[in-house]
Amino acid sequence: MKVAVVGASGYTGLELLRILLRHPELEIAAVTSEQRAGLPVGDAFPALRGRLDLRFESVDPGALAGRVELAFTALPHAASAAAVAALRASGCRVVDLSADFRLRSLETYETWYGAHPAPALLDDAVYGLPELHREALRGASLVAAPGCYPTSVLIPLAPILRAGLVEPHGIHIDAKSGVSGAGRTLADGYLFAELDGNCRAYKPGFSHRHAPEIEQEASRAAGSEVRVTFVPHLLPTTRGIATSVYLRPRTGDAAAAREALRDAYAGEPFVRVLREGELPSLQSVRGSNFCDVALVDDARNDTWILLSTLDNLCKGASGQAVQCANLACGLPETMGLLETAPQP
Amino acid sequence: MKVAVVGASGYTGLELLRILLRHPELEIAAVTSEQRAGLPVGDAFPALRGRLDLRFESVDPGALAGRVELAFTALPHAASAAAVAALRASGCRVVDLSADFRLRSLETYETWYGAHPAPALLDDAVYGLPELHREALRGASLVAAPGCYPTSVLIPLAPILRAGLVEPHGIHIDAKSGVSGAGRTLADGYLFAELDGNCRAYKPGFSHRHAPEIEQEASRAAGSEVRVTFVPHLLPTTRGIATSVYLRPRTGDAAAAREALRDAYAGEPFVRVLREGELPSLQSVRGSNFCDVALVDDARNDTWILLSTLDNLCKGASGQAVQCANLACGLPETMGLLETAPQP
Amino acid sequence: MKVAVVGASGYTGLELLRILLRHPELEIAAVTSEQRAGLPVGDAFPALRGRLDLRFESVDPGALAGRVELAFTALPHAASAAAVAALRASGCRVVDLSADFRLRSLETYETWYGAHPAPALLDDAVYGLPELHREALRGASLVAAPGCYPTSVLIPLAPILRAGLVEPHGIHIDAKSGVSGAGRTLADGYLFAELDGNCRAYKPGFSHRHAPEIEQEASRAAGSEVRVTFVPHLLPTTRGIATSVYLRPRTGDAAAAREALRDAYAGEPFVRVLREGELPSLQSVRGSNFCDVALVDDARNDTWILLSTLDNLCKGASGQAVQCANLACGLPETMGLLETAPQP
Amino acid sequence: MKVAVVGASGYTGLELLRILLRHPELEIAAVTSEQRAGLPVGDAFPALRGRLDLRFESVDPGALAGRVELAFTALPHAASAAAVAALRASGCRVVDLSADFRLRSLETYETWYGAHPAPALLDDAVYGLPELHREALRGASLVAAPGCYPTSVLIPLAPILRAGLVEPHGIHIDAKSGVSGAGRTLADGYLFAELDGNCRAYKPGFSHRHAPEIEQEASRAAGSEVRVTFVPHLLPTTRGIATSVYLRPRTGDAAAAREALRDAYAGEPFVRVLREGELPSLQSVRGSNFCDVALVDDARNDTWILLSTLDNLCKGASGQAVQCANLACGLPETMGLLETAPQP
Repeated sequence: MKVAVVGASGYTGLELLRILLRHPELEIAAVTSEQRAGLPVGDAFPALRGRLDLRFESVDPGALAGRVELAFTALPHAASAAAVAALRASGCRVVDLSADFRLRSLETYETWYGAHPAPALLDDAVYGLPELHREALRGASLVAAPGCYPTSVLIPLAPILRAGLVEPHGIHIDAKSGVSGAGRTLADGYLFAELDGNCRAYKPGFSHRHAPEIEQEASRAAGSEVRVTFVPHLLPTTRGIATSVYLRPRTGDAAAAREALRDAYAGEPFVRVLREGELPSLQSVRGSNFCDVALVDDARNDTWILLSTLDNLCKGASGQAVQCANLACGLPETMGLLETAPQP
Repeated sequence: MKVAVVGASGYTGLELLRILLRHPELEIAAVTSEQRAGLPVGDAFPALRGRLDLRFESVDPGALAGRVELAFTALPHAASAAAVAALRASGCRVVDLSADFRLRSLETYETWYGAHPAPALLDDAVYGLPELHREALRGASLVAAPGCYPTSVLIPLAPILRAGLVEPHGIHIDAKSGVSGAGRTLADGYLFAELDGNCRAYKPGFSHRHAPEIEQEASRAAGSEVRVTFVPHLLPTTRGIATSVYLRPRTGDAAAAREALRDAYAGEPFVRVLREGELPSLQSVRGSNFCDVALVDDARNDTWILLSTLDNLCKGASGQAVQCANLACGLPETMGLLETAPQP
Repeated sequence: MKVAVVGASGYTGLELLRILLRHPELEIAAVTSEQRAGLPVGDAFPALRGRLDLRFESVDPGALAGRVELAFTALPHAASAAAVAALRASGCRVVDLSADFRLRSLETYETWYGAHPAPALLDDAVYGLPELHREALRGASLVAAPGCYPTSVLIPLAPILRAGLVEPHGIHIDAKSGVSGAGRTLADGYLFAELDGNCRAYKPGFSHRHAPEIEQEASRAAGSEVRVTFVPHLLPTTRGIATSVYLRPRTGDAAAAREALRDAYAGEPFVRVLREGELPSLQSVRGSNFCDVALVDDARNDTWILLSTLDNLCKGASGQAVQCANLACGLPETMGLLETAPQP
Repeated sequence: MKVAVVGASGYTGLELLRILLRHPELEIAAVTSEQRAGLPVGDAFPALRGRLDLRFESVDPGALAGRVELAFTALPHAASAAAVAALRASGCRVVDLSADFRLRSLETYETWYGAHPAPALLDDAVYGLPELHREALRGASLVAAPGCYPTSVLIPLAPILRAGLVEPHGIHIDAKSGVSGAGRTLADGYLFAELDGNCRAYKPGFSHRHAPEIEQEASRAAGSEVRVTFVPHLLPTTRGIATSVYLRPRTGDAAAAREALRDAYAGEPFVRVLREGELPSLQSVRGSNFCDVALVDDARNDTWILLSTLDNLCKGASGQAVQCANLACGLPETMGLLETAPQP
C-alpha cells in the first residue's frame, strides 16, 4: 500500500520514514517538504543516504490523489488541517500528527490554537490512542495521533480513572521530556550549549497546549470532569518522556489500582505494566514503541504515583501513528513496530 | 585558619577542596582518605595538579588535633559520626557532610541508618541551612550540613509553611538530580552507558533517606506535622537538582505566598526569588552556591507549584558547608562562595 | 535456524539479542551468562521485557550441542576461545566476538593477550570483515568478528592501501569512541560523572590491543608491512566511533583514491562513500549497521584524510557478527540488518 | 580599574563577565550589546541575576571614552576592528577577542575574512599568548587574544618547533571541541537534538579560519615555514578542546622533546606538563584557565603525539584575554584566574 509523508522534514516526519522503511506493507511513495522541495531525501538527512530513493516534493495534496491510499500529515497546526481537508476530499485516508484534530471541542481548539481551517472534519477524527480507542480506529478515515505528553499520561492514568479509584481533581503531573519534542525549532533555548546538562520546567500549571488534550481524554475515561496541573520539563537528552502522576486515592486500595492497570493492558502489545518494585526508565523504551508503566503506593500520605516512560518520537508520535495506520488499514497492529530499544 | 577535609576522595570532598582553594581565610592543612593515603592529591585528582601540595593522610582524628581548628567530615554515615566524636573531643570545630547529625530523633535515625555511634552529640548539632537557622549557626561547634534534596525542597517550602498558607499533608515533591548525588558509587547503574540519555525515578514515595529529613525540617517550619511524598529522579547530567513541590493552598492567595518568599529571602545572598513568569534552570546555578526559586499558581486546580534549582555538590553540599563554616567561625558568610555559574 | 548467544549479559551480547529479535531466520534458542544464570532475560535487561521469554543459562557448551546450529560467543578473551573450542567440537558453527581468533599470529596474540586456549583453531578462523573477506566467510565454520576500531579504520583504509596509493609507514589514526566500547566495566573511569562532558585519549601510540589487529589487516591489504600510530579517545556519548586516518599519498592523485573507494564499495550494502564535500557524522550511523566514509585531500601539506563513522556495537561488533553469520549460513547478507539510524 | 565588555551577549562575553566578577582589580563599568541594549544583564543571562547591576548599552565606543581604561571587544570580525579603532582613538587599552588582529599579514587576513576595517592597527597588535609573547604583552595597548584551537595547538607545539626537533611539514592536527566554540550561532547544526551523542569533523584540511593562525605562530616558533593539516571536530559537550598533534621527529630523541616542554613551562602558572604516562582530559581543565599537555612517543612508527586539553571559553578565549589584560595593565598575571576545574 502506497503512502505519503506530508511534511517530512521535521523530526516526526523523519521518524515516520525510519519506521516505514522497515514496514512490510506500507511503501513510501511520496515525501513532501516545502523548504526542501526538489532535494533528494538522503541529501537532507544523511541517515537516509542510500535508503530511500526519493526527492522531496512541495506540498500539493491534489498531486497525491490517486498516487497514495494513505497519508501521514506532520505539518504545523492549521497548515496540517488544510492539507488534511484536501487529502480527505480526494479520498485519501489520513493519519494527522498535528494538534488539529485532537481536541473535540472547536472552542477549546480556538482558545489554544486560533482559527481552525477545517472544523467540519472534527467529528470524523478518531483520537489515535489504540489502547483507549482501538475499535473506533479500525477502518478510520481520519486519525488524530495524540500528543507525546498526553500519551505518556493517559496510558497509566486512564484505567485508574475509568475504575473510579481516585479523586478527579487535584491531579499533579510532572513530566520530563527530551528536547526533540520541540521539533527542529531554531531558537536560542534549543541550542546544544543551552541545554547540555540543563533541566528546566516550562509552561507550568495549565499553560502547555497538551494540558487541555490531557483533560479531554482523562475526563472521557473518568466519565466526569478531570482537572490536572501539568508541569513539563526539558531534559538534557534528545528522546524520551518520563512522567509522574500524583493521585489522591478514594479508598486507598492500591491492589485494586494495580489490578485495573494489569487488566487494562494484559493483552496490549506495547504497554508493559511493571511488577511491584520495578520502575520504568527512558533507556528501556527509547527508540521503541513501548510504554512502561508502574504504580507506587505512598499510603502514609494518601498518594499514589503513576510512573511512565515512552519515546516521544515513536510511541509519542510516529510509532503510534503507524500503529493507528495499521488499525485503520486492517493490517496487524504491531506491523513494523516491534523493534527493541537499544540498551545501552 | 587551618582546616582539614576528612574523607576528601569523594565528590563532596573534592568540591570542598575546590572551594577552599579560593577561600581567603580557610587554609587546607590536611586531607584524609583511607584508600588513597600517601598519594599526592594532584595524582588522584588531576584537576588539582599544581593546585594543592598535600598528600592524603589516613583518617586519624587524633593526629589532626592541634593542627586544625575546623574539620569538614565527608565520610559515609556512621563512619562520619565516629570521626566527628573524636574531632569534637579534641576541641575541633566540625562541619559534618554526612547524614549523621541531620535527624534530631535518634529513633528516626536508627530506622533509616542503623545504630548511631555518637548519639550524645545529636543535641549539639545545628542543622546547617543558614536561610532557616542562621543565628544558631553563628559560633556553632558542630554543624550538620543538610542533604542536597532537602535543601532544594526546604528553601522554597519553608517560608510558605511558616506562613501557614498550605495544607501540611498531601505535599508532592518531584525532584530531579544529576548523578553526582550518588557520589562515586561503583555500580552498574551509575556507568555512563547506563545513564547517558536516561532518566528514571528511584526510591519513590517515602523510601529515600532524605524524606524523613525533609519532613523534620518542614514540620519545624510549619509548627505541625508535615507529610510529603518524595519522588527523586536521576537526570542524564552530573550536577544540579531541579525540584517541583506541589501544594494545596488553604486560601488560594498566591500573592501572599509570593510575598512570603520575597520577605524570607530579601536579604539572602544565595537565594534568588524569581519574578513572576521567570523559571529556574540548572544552568543558572550549576557550579555556584545559588538557589533559584519560583512559585507558579494553578488556581483552576487549587494547586501551587514551587520550583527550585541548585547545584547538589555546592549549595546542596560543600558550598553550604563552607557557608556554615563561615558563620560558625565568625567570617563573612559569603566568603569564598560568590562564584557565578558558568553559562553555558 | 536456532542460535545461541553465549555471554549475553554484556553490551555486545545485548545488541546481538536486539538484532536477532528482528531477524526472520535466526531464532534465539539459548542465552548464557554465568553471573545471571537462572534469571529471566527481561528481568536483567528491561528493554527486553516481554520480548524474549528465556532465562539465562550458565555457560555449558556441551549443553548447547544439538540445540543450536550456530552460536555467537561474546565472552572475555581466553574464556571465549575455550567455549569456541567446545562448541566447534560439537559441530556448532561459531561467530566469535572476542579477540581470540582475530590475530593470525599466535605470537602476536600471546604478546597482547597471554596464552591462547585453542591455538589449533586459529587457522580455521576467518576474519569477519565481509567487505574484505566475503568469499572466505561464505560457509565459514568459525568467524572472528573484528574489533570496533579496526572496522572503522580498515573500511576506509584497505582500498587505498590495496591500490598502493599511500606510504605504508607513518600512518596516523585518531579515533574517538563512545563509552560502550569498554563494555560494562565497573571502574571509576567509566562512571557517568567521570565521563559526562569529558574527552580523553587513552593507550595512545601502539599500546591498545586493536593496534596489532589494524596492522595485520592493513598489511594484508597493502601486500607489505604497514605501520600505524593509533590514538583512541573516549567521547562523552555511548555509541559510535568517528575515525580520522592521516595518510601521505605517494603521487597525490586524490581522484584515484576516491575512485578506489567508490570501486571497492559500489555494491556494498553497508558502506556509504560520501560525495566530495560531504562528511560523516555519528548520528547518521548510530544504531545502524552502516559505515560512512569520506576522503579529504590536503594537497598543500601532502596529506589525505580518511574519515569514517560507524556504531561500535552494531557494525563494529554485533551487527557485523550477524552479517557474517548470514554469509556463513547462506542467508541474504543484509537480513535483519537494514535498520536506519534514528535521527535525531 | 574600570573596564568595558563590548559585545557581551555571546558566550565569550558572558565568560568575561563571569571572570571579571571575581577579579579584585578590574571592575565592570559597561557592557554593550546591540541586540539587548537597555536590558538588565541579569534578565538576559539568568546566571548573572543579582550579580551585576548593569544594563546593556548599545555599542558606542565614543561613549566609553573616559569611562573605562580598558575594553574587551568580543564582536564578530570586522565589526570588532571598527570598534577597536574607535576605542584606541579615545586612548582606551583594548584586548580584542575577535580574529581581526591575530593575523600579521593583511593579505592572509583578507583571504580568510575579507576587507579589514583598520589595517593601520595591525602592527600595534600583540598576539595574546602569554606563554609565547609575555614580554611584548606587558603594557601592550592592543592585544589580539588568540583563537581557541590555535591556543590548544601552539602551547604544546611551539617549544618542540623552537627546539627544531621535528619536521616542519606534514604536521597533522586532530582537534575536538565542545560546541560553545561556535558561539550562539542559530543554525540547525547547533541544535541540541543534532549534536547530542554526535561527533563530526568539519572544515577539514586547511579550510578552518584557525588554520592560517596556527601556521603563522608555528612558523614564528620554528623560524621557518610550518605546514599543518588541521581537522577540527565537534564533540557532544559544551566546553573544552582536546587536541592531538602528530609529528615526525627529526632525531627520535623523545627525551629532548619532553625536556623542551618542561623547560618552556617550568614556571608557567597555567600550563601543566604531565609526567610520562599521564594523559590530559577535558574534565581536568574545563571551567579553568589551565592547559594540560603531554607527549607520547611512538618510536616504532617515527611519530610523536602531543596531547593537550583546555577550556575553549576560558584559556581558549576569555580567561586568556584577562591574563593578557593583567599583563597589559601591570597586574599580577594570574589575578582572577586561579579557579580550579570542577571535578566532576
